[in-house]
This record gives sequence, C-alpha cells and structure tokens, in this order.
Amino acid sequence: MKLLLLKELLRKPVKAVFKTLFMLKNLPRWGGLAFIFLTVNVSLNVNAASGHPKLLVSETDVKGMRKAIKSEGLFKQAYQSKKASVDKQIIFKITVPLPKDGGGGYTHERHKKNYKLMYDAGIVYQITQDKQYAAYVRDMLLSYAELYPTLPVHPKRKVGKQNPGKLFWQSLNEAVWLVYTSQAYDLILPSLTVDEKAKIENGLFRPIVKFLSVESPATFNKVHNHGTWTTAAVGMTGYVLGELEWVEQALYGLDKSGKGGFLRQLDELFSPQGYYNEGPYYQRYALMPFVTFAKAIQANQPERKIFEYRNGIVLKAIDTTIQLSYNKLFFPINDAIKDKGIDTIELVNGVAIAYGLTGDVTLLDIAKQQGQILLTGDGLKVAQALDKKLELPYQFYSVAFGDGNDGKQGALVIMRQHSEGEQASEGQALVFKPAAQGLGHGHFDKLTWQFYDKGEEIVSDYGAARFLNVEAKYGGRYLPENKTWAKQTIAHNTVVVDEKSHFNGKVKMANKNHPELLFFENTDNITISSARIDTAYKGVALTRTMALIKLPNQGDTKQEQSLVIDVFDVQSDKKHQYDLPVHYKGHLISTNFKLATQLTSLPVLGKNNGYQHLWLKAQAQPKAGLAQITWLNENGRFYTQSSIMDGESSVIFTQIGANDALFNLRNENAFINRRKSAKHHSFVSVLEPHGEYNPSKEFTLAAVSKIQALSHHKINYIDVVEIKFIDGKRYLLAFTATKDIETNQLNQFSFNGFKHQFNGSFKLFEIK
Amino acid sequence: MKLLLLKELLRKPVKAVFKTLFMLKNLPRWGGLAFIFLTVNVSLNVNAASGHPKLLVSETDVKGMRKAIKSEGLFKQAYQSKKASVDKQIIFKITVPLPKDGGGGYTHERHKKNYKLMYDAGIVYQITQDKQYAAYVRDMLLSYAELYPTLPVHPKRKVGKQNPGKLFWQSLNEAVWLVYTSQAYDLILPSLTVDEKAKIENGLFRPIVKFLSVESPATFNKVHNHGTWTTAAVGMTGYVLGELEWVEQALYGLDKSGKGGFLRQLDELFSPQGYYNEGPYYQRYALMPFVTFAKAIQANQPERKIFEYRNGIVLKAIDTTIQLSYNKLFFPINDAIKDKGIDTIELVNGVAIAYGLTGDVTLLDIAKQQGQILLTGDGLKVAQALDKKLELPYQFYSVAFGDGNDGKQGALVIMRQHSEGEQASEGQALVFKPAAQGLGHGHFDKLTWQFYDKGEEIVSDYGAARFLNVEAKYGGRYLPENKTWAKQTIAHNTVVVDEKSHFNGKVKMANKNHPELLFFENTDNITISSARIDTAYKGVALTRTMALIKLPNQGDTKQEQSLVIDVFDVQSDKKHQYDLPVHYKGHLISTNFKLATQLTSLPVLGKNNGYQHLWLKAQAQPKAGLAQITWLNENGRFYTQSSIMDGESSVIFTQIGANDALFNLRNENAFINRRKSAKHHSFVSVLEPHGEYNPSKEFTLAAVSKIQALSHHKINYIDVVEIKFIDGKRYLLAFTATKDIETNQLNQFSFNGFKHQFNGSFKLFEIK
Repeated sequence: MKLLLLKELLRKPVKAVFKTLFMLKNLPRWGGLAFIFLTVNVSLNVNAASGHPKLLVSETDVKGMRKAIKSEGLFKQAYQSKKASVDKQIIFKITVPLPKDGGGGYTHERHKKNYKLMYDAGIVYQITQDKQYAAYVRDMLLSYAELYPTLPVHPKRKVGKQNPGKLFWQSLNEAVWLVYTSQAYDLILPSLTVDEKAKIENGLFRPIVKFLSVESPATFNKVHNHGTWTTAAVGMTGYVLGELEWVEQALYGLDKSGKGGFLRQLDELFSPQGYYNEGPYYQRYALMPFVTFAKAIQANQPERKIFEYRNGIVLKAIDTTIQLSYNKLFFPINDAIKDKGIDTIELVNGVAIAYGLTGDVTLLDIAKQQGQILLTGDGLKVAQALDKKLELPYQFYSVAFGDGNDGKQGALVIMRQHSEGEQASEGQALVFKPAAQGLGHGHFDKLTWQFYDKGEEIVSDYGAARFLNVEAKYGGRYLPENKTWAKQTIAHNTVVVDEKSHFNGKVKMANKNHPELLFFENTDNITISSARIDTAYKGVALTRTMALIKLPNQGDTKQEQSLVIDVFDVQSDKKHQYDLPVHYKGHLISTNFKLATQLTSLPVLGKNNGYQHLWLKAQAQPKAGLAQITWLNENGRFYTQSSIMDGESSVIFTQIGANDALFNLRNENAFINRRKSAKHHSFVSVLEPHGEYNPSKEFTLAAVSKIQALSHHKINYIDVVEIKFIDGKRYLLAFTATKDIETNQLNQFSFNGFKHQFNGSFKLFEIK
Repeated sequence: MKLLLLKELLRKPVKAVFKTLFMLKNLPRWGGLAFIFLTVNVSLNVNAASGHPKLLVSETDVKGMRKAIKSEGLFKQAYQSKKASVDKQIIFKITVPLPKDGGGGYTHERHKKNYKLMYDAGIVYQITQDKQYAAYVRDMLLSYAELYPTLPVHPKRKVGKQNPGKLFWQSLNEAVWLVYTSQAYDLILPSLTVDEKAKIENGLFRPIVKFLSVESPATFNKVHNHGTWTTAAVGMTGYVLGELEWVEQALYGLDKSGKGGFLRQLDELFSPQGYYNEGPYYQRYALMPFVTFAKAIQANQPERKIFEYRNGIVLKAIDTTIQLSYNKLFFPINDAIKDKGIDTIELVNGVAIAYGLTGDVTLLDIAKQQGQILLTGDGLKVAQALDKKLELPYQFYSVAFGDGNDGKQGALVIMRQHSEGEQASEGQALVFKPAAQGLGHGHFDKLTWQFYDKGEEIVSDYGAARFLNVEAKYGGRYLPENKTWAKQTIAHNTVVVDEKSHFNGKVKMANKNHPELLFFENTDNITISSARIDTAYKGVALTRTMALIKLPNQGDTKQEQSLVIDVFDVQSDKKHQYDLPVHYKGHLISTNFKLATQLTSLPVLGKNNGYQHLWLKAQAQPKAGLAQITWLNENGRFYTQSSIMDGESSVIFTQIGANDALFNLRNENAFINRRKSAKHHSFVSVLEPHGEYNPSKEFTLAAVSKIQALSHHKINYIDVVEIKFIDGKRYLLAFTATKDIETNQLNQFSFNGFKHQFNGSFKLFEIK
C-alpha cells in the first residue's frame, strides 16, 4: 500500500519541485501520508526587501507589472478592469463614517469597501505611477488617522461573545481591515512626506496595532483563525513600519514564548498533511491570513524559511484545499455554503503564491479555472504562464487526510476514480468522513459519506442552512434550521440510534471524541477504508467500511463507472432503533418492493433532532433479500442502491420541509433504512451508477440495475460481501475492519465450500 | 404597429433572401404577420434529377462530399464518425426478425435500427464507393423482400386505435421506415443488377407502397401527421422507382382530388406563419416528413416549386420551430418533454435544408448550436460555411403566431426582451397562450403564460408527465398523471373556476372553441397583448392582458430587466371561486404578509381536476393592498410578484406530490391567488426580476423589490395600472382590452385629477 501511495504522489507533478521523503518504517497502516516529510526546494529570494512596497508586492514585482501592461495578455486585461473599477470609485468623496452599524449595516460595509479600495488604488498607483491614486489613499488614511484615536469600542459589540473592534463590531473585521490597509499604506509610502507618514502612523497604525495586540491579548494569543488574522495584521504592519518587535510578537505570541502566535497556529490548526479540521469551507477562509502573512515574512525575512516551516505546511494547506473540491466546488462538510469553490478569492491568492514559489504548472490548471488574475508579482507570473498556455492538468487523487494537529484524530477520506480520458471533475468522488467534530461549525455526522459522479452530487450532504447575506432570511446569518436540521445526524448519511444525534448533539462531547481510522488503502481499481467510533452513542459501537470499486470490464457486467460498497456494522448490548438515511439527488424511478405511499395527508416523521423536519412520504417493509431503489438524476444518469434486507427492517421515504414555517429549508429527498429493536445490525449495500436517460435523442440505456443478489457474512474477523450480477458473474469483497492486522498477515476463510485467502486488509475475488 | 412589425422583420437577415411583401391595407390589428406574402427567391436547380441518388442527396452532392472528405473540417469529422459507427455494426450478421413485439420491444427496435443502418451504409457507400456497404444494404433489402410478402398485419396491432403496420404495430412506424429505406435503396441502386432490383422492388417496395396507400386509404388521405409520413414515404418511393403516379397520389390524395395528400396537409396543418397547432414539441416531430419530402420533390420536380407553395410555408415552419425555443429548448406547450430542443434531428434536417435553399447565414448560428453535421449536400454546405465561420447571430423576435390553418384561431404570443450585448438565450421571454387546444395532446390552459430569464425557466409549465422510454415508469408512455395533473388547468398559470378545468376537461369541446386575440403590439420597450375566451367556462368571460415592459433607466428605479404586467379579468353573472396559480421555479425567500404554514401535517388541496395532486403547504389572507412574494432561483436571481389584494382573497402555497403512489410527479411549487364567491374579479400583478445572490463571492445585491404600490382602475373601457416605485417614480400603463379599437382611435381618461390620452391600444405614461 505504501508503494501505491508513493506512486500516487509521484504522479503529482509537484515532484519536480518538492523533494519528497518517505519514512517507510513500521507506521500505522493508514498513516502513510501523514508521515511524508516534504522539503521545499525553491529558488528563494535570499535578500530581504529593503524599500517599499515590501509585503505581497516587491519593487521587482512592480517593475515587471509596469512592463507587462505594455503588451496584450491576461495581466493587462486584469489591470485595465481593476483600474476602471478604481477610477469609477475615486471620483466620489472620501467617506470615513463614524462606526455605528453591525455586520451588513452601512458603516460596516463602508469600512470594508474602503480597505478594498485603498488596496486597489495603491496597486494602481504603483503600476501607473499616477499620483492621484496615492493621494486618494493618503487622504483616506489621514481621515482614518484623525478618526481612530477618538473611537471607543464599537457600539454594536457583543459582550462575552466576540472580542470587539472599534471600526467594526468584532475585532476579526478590524484585523482583516488592517491586513489590507497595511498593504495599501506600504504601496503608497514612497509618495508621502515625513509629516504625512507621522500623522498616519501615529494616528492610525500604532493605535490599531496596540489595540489588536497588547490591548486584546486573548485574541492575539489565541490559537484560532481569529488569532491568525490578528497576528498577520500586526506582523505585516510591523514590517511596513520597521517595527520588528511586532513581528516577533506576531510569530511567537505577545510574550514571545511561542505558546501563541502565528507559528503555533501553523503547528496546531493544520494536520501534518495540511487539513484544517473545520473542513474545506472554513479551510478556504482560514487560508487567507496564513498565505498572506507567510508571503510577507518570506519577502522580508527569508532566513525564517517560513514556507519550509513544518515540512511546508503552508503549501500543503493550499494544495489540500484544492484536493477538497469536486467539479470546482468544495465538498460541503460541516457548516458550508455549497456554492463556494476553488474560485474564491482566498484560493486565488493561495494558488498564485504557491505557483510563484514552486512553478508547479498543474496549479495553472486551477488558476485557469479560477479565471481571476491578481495584480501582484505572483499574479503576473500566473498570467504570463497562462498566456503561454503552460498549464498541465492538476491531478486529484485518493487520500486519507488525517485529522487533528497530529493527524491522528480520525481522518477525512477522499476516494476518486475516473474512466480513461475522463477528467476528475467528470469522474467519481466518494467522501467518507471518520473525521473529528471540527469545533462549533462541525456537524454530528460521524462516518457519513457523500458521492459524486459526472460532475454532480448523487448522495448529498445538506451543507449549512443559510442564505448568506440575504437579509430576508434571518438577516443572512445561519438559520435556526442550521441547528435544528443541518447539524443533526439524520441530515447526514450515517446511522442514527434511537432518533438521537451523535453525542446527543453536544459540541463539547463531540470535540473530545473522534472516530478512529482503521485503514485506508488505495490500488488502481479499489479504494477502501474502514473506521469506527464507540463514543457517538453510549454503549453502541459503529464501524463502517466503504469501498469504491472498478470491476474488470467483462461481457454484460461491464461497468463504465465504479460501484460503492458500504458495510455499516452496529453493535450494542442493548436493543435500539437504527436508522441509516441516503439523501439522494434526483427523481425516484422505481423500487423492487411495494410502497405504502401517503396519498392524501403527509405526517411528520418525528419530534426532534431533525426528525421534526421530515415529511413521511412512503413506507415499505421489503421481504428478506435484495431491496433495490433506483433514481434518475438531472443529468440523465440512473443510480440504484441495492441493500440486503433482513425481513425485519423497513424503508422510509422522506422529504425535508416539516416544521418549516418560513420555507427556510430545501425540500430534498431521502430514504431511510430502519431496523427497530436490535442489538446488532449490519447495513450492507451497493450503489451502482448506470445507463443514460436521453429524452432529447429519444433513447434510454441500461435503466435497470445489473445486480441480482447480495450477501454478507462475518467469518471470524473477516467480512465477506458477495455480489452476483444478472449474467452470473460473482465477486467477493473480503476485508478486515480492524486495526490489528499487519500488512503481511494471512487471512483465510471458507465460502460456499471453497477456501480463500488474502494478505493484509482486503481483497476482491472474482468467482469463476 | 405595422411599421414596427415591418422593422422587426426587416431586422431578420432572411431579408437578403426572401422578397417580403406587406399588404398594408386595413387588416385586423394584430394580424400583420399573417398577411405577409413571402416568395422564395433562391437559385433553384431547374433540372430534375435523372440518375441516382435523387432524393435528399444528388449526384452533384455526392461529388462534393467525396471531395470534402479529403480535407480537414467539420464534414470530414462527421463522415469519419458515421463511418466508424457503420463499420462497427456491419460486422454482425444481418437480422431481419419476424415482427412480433410492440413499441420498445426487440423486433420493433431491430427494424428501426435496420432502416437507420441501411440509410447510413448507403451514404457511406456513396462517399467511399466501397461496394461492401452497398452489398450490406442490398442483402438486408433482399431479406426484407423475402419476408414482407409473407407478413400478415402486425400481431400487436391495436384494433380501432391505430392503423396497423406489418413490420410494426402501427402503420406510422412503417411509413417512417419506408422514408429512410427508400433513400437507402436510392443510394445503392446503381450498384444492383437488374435481377436484384426486380426482387427488391417486387418483394418489398411495391407491396409496402400498396399496403400504405390503396390498402390504407384512411391514413393515406388523412390530413394529419400520420398522413404526412405516409404520403412522404409513398411519394419518395415513387421517385426512386420512377412511379410518378404514386407521387401524384402522395401530393393530391389517392383519388388525386386534392382533398387529401401532402399539399392539403401543407394547407391545413400549419397556420399562415408556419405554426403547427399542437405546439413546438409536436411541430418539431411533424417537420421531418414535410421537410424531407419537400426536398425530394424539389430535386425531382423543381417545376412544382414546392418551397414556394403557400408563400413558402415549409421554410416558415422551419423558422417558426426555431422561434419557439428559448436557450436551445422548445417552449413546453401541451404534451411536451422539456428536454427537447433545437438539437433534435428533425430540426437539424430542417436547418440544413433551409440553409441549402436560402443561404441564410443566421441559420448557421443554429446549426452551430446543434453541433451535428448531416452527410448530405446541404450538410456539406453547412459544414463548409461553419468551417469558414460565416455564421451571424440568429435573431429571435416578439411575435404573435396566429393559430389554426387560417391563423385566426387564437394565437401563441412570444414576447422577447434582452439587454444590450445580451444574447436572446440570456434575455427574457414571455410565452402567452391564447392559442387553440391543439387536439389530443393539448392542455386545458387557455390564456396561460410562461416566463424565462437569464437562460432559465422562472414561471413554468409542467410540460408532459412522462419519462420517455423508461420502462419502469409506465412503460415509458405518457403517465396516468399526464391526464390527472399535467393537462389540467390548475397545472398551468391561468384562472381555474370552481376547481374545474377549462371545457370541463373535454377535448372535443376544447377543439371546437378557441380564445380570441384582441391585440398584439410590439415596440422597442413594450410588448403587450390581450386575449379573451368566453367558452372555457359556461357563463364566465376570461380576459387577460400581459405586457413585457422595459422601463427607462433612471436613478433608483433602474431595471436591468423588464417587468411583466399581468391583468386577468374574470366576469360572470353568478358567483364563483377563481384561482390563479403561479408555478414558480426557485426557493421561496419571503412574503410581506404572514403565512399560516402547515407544520406537522400536510393536507391535500382538493379532490380532482389536478387539485388532488397538490399538497397545501401554507395559506395566508393578506390585507387589502400590495402582497409581495419573493423567490430566488438556482442561478442566484430574485423574482418578486407584487399583486393587488382586495382583502377578501387568500394566497395558497402548494407543492405537487399528493395522490402520487409511485412518485411519478416532480415536486414543484406554486402559489395560488384565490378569490372565493365573486362575480367579477381582476387579478393584477407585476413580476419583477431583480438583484443577485452570489454566495461564492459573498455579495447579495437588490434582494428586495423596488415596487412600493400598485393600483388598477377600469375607467370606462380603459384599464389603468399604476406602478409606484420606492424612489417615488410612478408609471401608468393604460390599455384597451377589446378588439373594437381602431389604430388611430383617441382614448382619454382622468387619473388623480389629471387628464391623459393615447391612440390605439395602449400607452405607458411616466407621471412626473
């Protein structure tokens, strides 16, 4: 398995840039990736910046940019568009209002617009050398320098909840404001008189740095995303004002002990592979100050080798953020708005800086999809490379991202498979989530999964219940239904015991416990992973094994796409009710069992923990044997879930929407496999993508599942799943859902009178 | 108004090709288009085809195609792909099974595949001159020639329902089969011996022609789509076999009286503007035999000037089919599968033939979007023109297509508006349907409307309830819910009286009556139309006026997109319940009135006529004044419907899905404005597209309606709708929903103490 991982990694073109070292000694079986040591081998600018600008844009960059706008290309287009936008804004009077409103309100939005405008005008000044732009920034900074010393803490502060700012209701916004404004100041500094500098620094920068650092020690020292913005803001301002003490504090905490500060944040907030445990939506957001400050450190103190810190954790974090996407959108894990993807500004910054450092041409593939060129030195490099069409396809791979700062607190598993000639965005992706809770934005969804095929969500996660910035929908904040529905276990594709959520919905408990990744293995045709958690419910052990399997193409069993095999084993000493939902996207086509559908009245399924939001549309009690449910998605592809039924279980078809007075929820569909009153139960199923519905060309292909029978046997410690196809072909998947197996251990079992054996964790047998 | 129509038409690039004559005398006010006389002015091949092939492909075409495959280009690509497909199939043994199965069954599908394969192999033979392809077609034809004389009528025929075939269960398929097979024979004829010809003609073509013509006089003479396929098949075979008597019968009916036959079909089945009264879905299907046979007539008897027949009705029908689309898909009127659009094979043929005849380069725009090149002479012309990038944008325009063979049986009205620089596919389209019933596939939806914006459906029509060719869904046929839901009035955006459908759901009654178009007018910024029907319900007169209005851009009332104004007036001597639904696509964002939402149980709304399929999700009884409902569509655009409420009306929010045991229906949403127990009621509303929701870039713009108040007054015979915006701007739309207004008639009214006047049907006043 380690050799395959190696191969997987070598396939990545970063190999040309990174020197990759593998420690192949006796590691935990799944942890290969977590132990990759990676050293950055880049041509670093060994001279620290001396003049200005000196943060994300250097004097050399400026020379390049001035030259670049003289010839046609992406950079010039981006420059012209930005300049036009700035020109449109600076004709208006400078407005620096007295802080008054909370998030979304007028003064809040105005101060946000101001920092963006100052930054943009600063860049345009550097490129054009036209003093009107510098003067505009100067005048606005002078206004701030007059205002800031007069400000109390913000009137809309939330005492005891968020650390307050002065310009904004929370200090987080104040720090973000300073990250940009320090850069704007850096960009126009050479144009200022000594007197102007003094006014601006004494009236604005020194007070705001003081306010954010020594006057807000808790936030400044906090090992948390808010701390990252704050330390980045203070450190970057330190470089501009030549206050290297501020930089030291930013890096090591106020007391410079290293217990807080930027480096500690780099140690704690990412796993060794660069995974951020709130999930990709917040990883994207968190990335910005890390990448920005790191770039500034690199420019000013190259001797710190910040991009080599913790084996290149900053670059790993950028790359991991990309890996956590499918067809340009991030996997919606935890509180996540589903529209966010690789074209967000944070990742545009990350990719440009990473490309600037590494020259990895597969990053250009991402940059091209982002379609945004930054007016920085790195942005120029990206633009020129895209003009020359240097991009090569970025490679997505199957991987288990170990969770937690040590990478051992469970994992987020991505399995990918695509046909020859197919892009990763059209291929399949399976997200399996034996990850840690991910703090306050985490969902109670241990061992859940999501599935993607041909660019679309197939088995889906609701994401966050929120209409970002839509005032009419709860002020644009997280809706109450985010807690009552989206975070609850039943909103995910994992087992719910007795209609209660994991950890009884308590974040504190959830943060203290995490699943255990039993193994993750990846071969050319099979990716398989197994994980377990005993703490989600008292006295109930949940073990799930998921595999994405590409069967050999033979005769009628030919599968263009892979199958998903899912074995979810639940064990308890006491009897419980076990529910396993599949939230599917598409239109229900057929079931091979009879439905009792609610015809004239829809009841609600339950009372709380998310069940109060589900309409009960239909029920069924299939006979023991194979139960099949087929749906058709919007792109005209069929999906059949085949499950083993024990004759006692029922299937419930639901739609979201009950107890939703204000129509806040999307009316999505699910079916729930329910086993009442059992100590032990195994949910075993296969998901099979098939066929095509093409009403435009008037044909329908392979609308029916090719699976004829499924069986599951536990033979000692070995799970055996048998899949029989309609043409008679049979396959056995054998695996050991335990972490006590050595790679070379020989496992033997008898099945149908024949003996089988395999080494390690799993094997797929074709039965002749 | 006529001048505007003229301008509209002159804007169309067909002007270069067609000589357009307008008769500007005293016409019905809306009927301008119906009176356009159009003569085709194309360089016709004045010599009839002498050798073979002689139908859709000529000897000259073949020479061009042989040459074309020697150089790179779209034609060569299409040829290579087709040849590869044929090569893959002809390695298998020829299979001509004894007819046994009905539609979708094995022998049915096999005979369909056979005609396509013979046609394709014939074309490849002509291009390659490789005799193996001709031999393959020959051998298959010989097999058919042996089989056909032995066949009784098909065992799966449906007595009394469909005229039976021999190879197929219905003669329609037999005629389609012959349309292709006669062409295949024509393509390989020069390769055959005299003996082979005799066998094939005596065993196959003469018997099948006899069977389809003299032995099936009812179908052959029928002025109906089935008749078109039959006459086309017989006529085309006549040309190939030199039996011009068959051609005469095909053109004028079996008795050559002209009471039946192809020309009569051209007279009866299309309106003067080329609209087919079943709607675009079936228009597209019907087009194929018309276009195909016309092309064959043109090639063999150019003196018939078939493309000039009835003022160029065939070309008009092709163009009208394109006009009946939005963003590549046909407007889903009547029984229509919503995935069908301009890339269907019927329209690929139509566009190629039309381009071949007219050289209209805007047709290349459509051909490019179709992305399919035909291996014919016309296909070659299209391919070469696209290789040279000769295409210019095809122009969509606002138009009232008069319905019925005289164009006077109501109309289908299309209103279009798009911003500068925007393509028609991104702009707005409003479909207003005071059209006739459209026979058995018609829906009970008089005066309904649909609305499209930015490429998406906004106010939608369900289309047909059918999963074409999906066996698990009612054998792929029209679902029972097509009748119980999709055809019913409540499934459309028009008034339902007393929960009954128009004409009580009786097709016979519906076919006998049609709405009356009162007027249709089109200026640069306003398209407006009014129509009326008194026969949909006994004793109830329905009059609707719809307008698509682009307001002047001024200050805060700036509207990037147009508004839809809808005034639906209902009059009766007795009291009734009036329901007006809006089937909307998107997520409900807010209402400016309080909702009583069903929280824990959903009741069904009604018992029959479609109401039995609606869940009642919420109700409200807004105060007298302005009721606003805002939704957000998937593309992040907001839509607000503002309605005038009288304090007595209620609003009901519904979802489709009740009484749907097998999950056959899509769970779409609507709101219904309900007025109980009234003799007279006017539903007056404005639909306003606005703003943008962009969670990826984290901004939301203009999420709130800009309309502050609406009022409606009937002042004598003049309707006045007042729209007041939040910035104080006010507009009055005045119109006369009657057909008795002369163009130059002066209409006067007083409003708020001011006098206003206008000529003709309408005027928009800006109130200072």
